[in-house]
Amino acid sequence: MIVLGIDPGSAICGYGFVEHPALKPLAVGVITTSPNARMQDRLLKIHTELAALIAAYRPQIMGLEKLFFGKNATTAIPVAQARGIVLLCAAQSNLDVIELSPNEVKQAVTGYGHAEKEQVIYMVTKLLKLAAPPKPDDAADALAIALAAGYQADSPAYRNFEALS
Amino acid sequence: MIVLGIDPGSAICGYGFVEHPALKPLAVGVITTSPNARMQDRLLKIHTELAALIAAYRPQIMGLEKLFFGKNATTAIPVAQARGIVLLCAAQSNLDVIELSPNEVKQAVTGYGHAEKEQVIYMVTKLLKLAAPPKPDDAADALAIALAAGYQADSPAYRNFEALS
Repeated sequence: MIVLGIDPGSAICGYGFVEHPALKPLAVGVITTSPNARMQDRLLKIHTELAALIAAYRPQIMGLEKLFFGKNATTAIPVAQARGIVLLCAAQSNLDVIELSPNEVKQAVTGYGHAEKEQVIYMVTKLLKLAAPPKPDDAADALAIALAAGYQADSPAYRNFEALS
Repeated sequence: MIVLGIDPGSAICGYGFVEHPALKPLAVGVITTSPNARMQDRLLKIHTELAALIAAYRPQIMGLEKLFFGKNATTAIPVAQARGIVLLCAAQSNLDVIELSPNEVKQAVTGYGHAEKEQVIYMVTKLLKLAAPPKPDDAADALAIALAAGYQADSPAYRNFEALS
């Protein structure tokens, strides 16, 4: 089973493909867009590049972090817009989407839901046997999400749910 | 010039096509999605239906309201996600997007930036010579946005900007 993890953003959108349960990393990187481009063109670039990646690596599941907006929600609108594009890509390729809170991702990867970012990156590097921590952080976060979503998809509860749905 | 106005939402997405400067209404309605469906499938429905409408009515310009999130931003995430899909449709059909604040829309349609909703609907009905107020409100709002975006596109300042860009 191949799991795609996504750390959505309109400027930097991290992605990571991981084969489960082997925990084999297949691809990791970021889709970047120019802050000088029009928002509709930035979203088009994310859609085009993510759809091409999905066509190349053919995942069955997409892991995606839930968004929680705090006080400065207006600046988070572009993140939610990019997240909409990511969800559209999932639907267009018929991927199951597993939504996880940031704490669920940390818990799955480090065993502690309030782990620091450095600890998450350390464990991603170790679990996937990478030569060095993935850069930038958005790419490492995407791999963490792919790991967490894969663990959840492997769980009996999820498989029962899928059999019923 | 045909202008498409959109009032984005994940459950109800209003649309209205208006020919400028004749102020001739061409089509108005809403795209609805089921709250029981998965979010990725709801966004796919919005993308599919909006792309079909754009292909049918061939607008040159899309008017879209700016989002401002207040205290309860988490509930507004689905709106922003749907707005991302709408912007993608604009980019995929090479439409110019004119973003307007709610106050700019009210100002353009009623002459008063803090007009009540009823006043906006009354003026939309009158300006477009409709037999009755459009229903639901999301459809009427979309027509108001189409009117406001068309007025702005007709302005000399906008034409100068377009000639330069």
